[in-house]
Amino acid sequence: MTGGLEQGVTAPRGFRAAGVRCGIKAVGRDLALIVSDRTASAAALFTTNRAVAAPVLVSREHLQATAGRARAVVTNSGCANACTGKAGLEAAALMASAVARAIGCAAEEVLVASTGVIGVPLDVHKVASGVVAAAEQLDASAGGADAAEAIMTTDARPKAHAVEVSTTAGMVRIGGMAKGAGMIEPNLATMLAFLTTDAAVETSLLRRALVDACEDTFNAITVDGECSTNDAVFLLANGASGVTIDASDYDVFVEGLRAVCRHLAIEIVRGGEGATKLVTVQVTGARTYDEAKRAARALANSLLVKTALNGGDPNWGRLLAVAGRAGVTFALPTARAAIGPVILYEHGRPHDTRSEDAARYLEGRDVTVSVDLGAGGHDEATIWTCDLSAEYVRINSEYRT
Amino acid sequence: MTGGLEQGVTAPRGFRAAGVRCGIKAVGRDLALIVSDRTASAAALFTTNRAVAAPVLVSREHLQATAGRARAVVTNSGCANACTGKAGLEAAALMASAVARAIGCAAEEVLVASTGVIGVPLDVHKVASGVVAAAEQLDASAGGADAAEAIMTTDARPKAHAVEVSTTAGMVRIGGMAKGAGMIEPNLATMLAFLTTDAAVETSLLRRALVDACEDTFNAITVDGECSTNDAVFLLANGASGVTIDASDYDVFVEGLRAVCRHLAIEIVRGGEGATKLVTVQVTGARTYDEAKRAARALANSLLVKTALNGGDPNWGRLLAVAGRAGVTFALPTARAAIGPVILYEHGRPHDTRSEDAARYLEGRDVTVSVDLGAGGHDEATIWTCDLSAEYVRINSEYRT
Repeated sequence: MTGGLEQGVTAPRGFRAAGVRCGIKAVGRDLALIVSDRTASAAALFTTNRAVAAPVLVSREHLQATAGRARAVVTNSGCANACTGKAGLEAAALMASAVARAIGCAAEEVLVASTGVIGVPLDVHKVASGVVAAAEQLDASAGGADAAEAIMTTDARPKAHAVEVSTTAGMVRIGGMAKGAGMIEPNLATMLAFLTTDAAVETSLLRRALVDACEDTFNAITVDGECSTNDAVFLLANGASGVTIDASDYDVFVEGLRAVCRHLAIEIVRGGEGATKLVTVQVTGARTYDEAKRAARALANSLLVKTALNGGDPNWGRLLAVAGRAGVTFALPTARAAIGPVILYEHGRPHDTRSEDAARYLEGRDVTVSVDLGAGGHDEATIWTCDLSAEYVRINSEYRT
Repeated sequence: MTGGLEQGVTAPRGFRAAGVRCGIKAVGRDLALIVSDRTASAAALFTTNRAVAAPVLVSREHLQATAGRARAVVTNSGCANACTGKAGLEAAALMASAVARAIGCAAEEVLVASTGVIGVPLDVHKVASGVVAAAEQLDASAGGADAAEAIMTTDARPKAHAVEVSTTAGMVRIGGMAKGAGMIEPNLATMLAFLTTDAAVETSLLRRALVDACEDTFNAITVDGECSTNDAVFLLANGASGVTIDASDYDVFVEGLRAVCRHLAIEIVRGGEGATKLVTVQVTGARTYDEAKRAARALANSLLVKTALNGGDPNWGRLLAVAGRAGVTFALPTARAAIGPVILYEHGRPHDTRSEDAARYLEGRDVTVSVDLGAGGHDEATIWTCDLSAEYVRINSEYRT
């Protein structure tokens, strides 16, 4: 049996999942297990943070040992198992072994993720008993939704999505779930995403597809500019559909993968800590794509831009000032700043009479701000972010204990 | 007559200053004029923002035209004269001409600065009448304090400082004033500083001294990571002391200049918007000085670090996680994190039992956090910052009108 598209990771054939409570978080499910019925090709992208957490090290090692094959991914929430030294590495390895024992595979075929507080030891006994319970409850339908719930911390709601893609050889499904930027004990906004597909995709092509799909989705969002010690995106392709993706169907497959990633990525931003608005930042007129993305990222992370948006202030001056300091080619006389459809600066002149229209537009919950760098190029980039509210400060300034 | 050291820019001999109200801000003095009795060597550092404001362009042009000589610096608060196109350039040039007429010098010998809202035209009539009034009130004593008041926006108090330096050829004085990161109509946290000395210093040496003194003072502070369109530091050396600074006295001169800059820089951070704490961020164990400074800057600008400090949370995990994503050489097993004198992570292991000591330490208003990158090097850097409070969000999210 296969779950509906709303089940996320269990929507593709041949995947079962479970989400159980093992007692690491104060309340709720806190251990998720995704299992492929057959060995799957596997690809993953990990945090670039050098204070890298134990589960990332273990998963990277396992992917290397199997040359990109996996049967399962196990995740706990409530404890990041980061900055935990040798004991943390042993705990992450133990998590994988427990799954391997429970489902009957090699420990190297199990990938591991954690999210939660840094510097706190992971309780391996709780994890081990959680793994046993999860293995017993594995389900090809509701299991996907349970797993999406088990990776939540203070996320307002679970994030799961799936699509069906029509290839020349038949239909394949791509599903996913993600954990956003919210924390029970505010710490690092770890971003975790788990993707599954019943397409058969050879490992190196799968990795390329993951990189391609993440570039303008998971790599194009920000809540607070913090790259965590535990960030990870996993993709398992088990071939249960009988459809093999090769060069001719690559584009349509990546488009489907991108659709799942984009949906999850935007949901993460929408659920950002204290966020009241989803903000799409568009940069055009850049000399190169890298410069467009750098400028968009600077705008998306600027405290002054994010607080202005929180207050509904159509402060185009801040948009230009941030674009100007982003370290990219920028020409004030030919630059343009707009809030939604309202152009507030163009041809070297402000159009402040339009401020009221822009302020009205900013009353919405989904808003777009855009800057043309006036650099004479045609490259552009989009970054999704959220506003910065006093609530964000409150959440993150509370003492952990 | 020479002002006391508390007068700042008029403490050195041969400088007069005034601060008057010309009506740009809603209340209070808003035009400052500093005049040297004789032509002075002049050096300046300007914003690297490419959305550079008109007064910066005009000042740069004037310094080039005179090969680094000046008689006066004029500044208005309440309007940044940025993103104001051709009219803005004309207004900035007019500001200089008005001063030149009033004190009898060439327009190119006048440097110009502005701070305030972006994108609003500068009222040249108000400025012109302000310049006339300021020129009439020029004073070698109290004028320094008046000028320091006239460049304030929402700064809690004026920032002025001066020192006396003993050189081989005699005593010289170095004075200064600065405008911090606070705004009446919240916009860009423009940083302006004006330095004077009665030492005689040849222009190229003066410029070198300014660069040297700013590196670990004005270039080592941050409130919100925003480089403004108007940032500028000016230094005028008029030789009124009869003492010439050459290679033999360079170090002692720079040390004095640095002392003035450091005092003003720290006062800017202490007066940061919504700030409740002055935070000294120390990074050690770096492979290079650049890496030390980059890591310190990442820590000083991290929302998660700044909100934790606001809440008095000794969250050392965030310190390591931010150092790890700073793009510098970093080794978790040999890294160290401390809050004040309390080491919370060392030798790959947390020392969370010390958290309460660290929390007590964080109750102070002046706090230090430090990270050793464990990279095996001996380079280090210090950055001053402030915490991030809900008040910062409130100040900056208010609609301007």
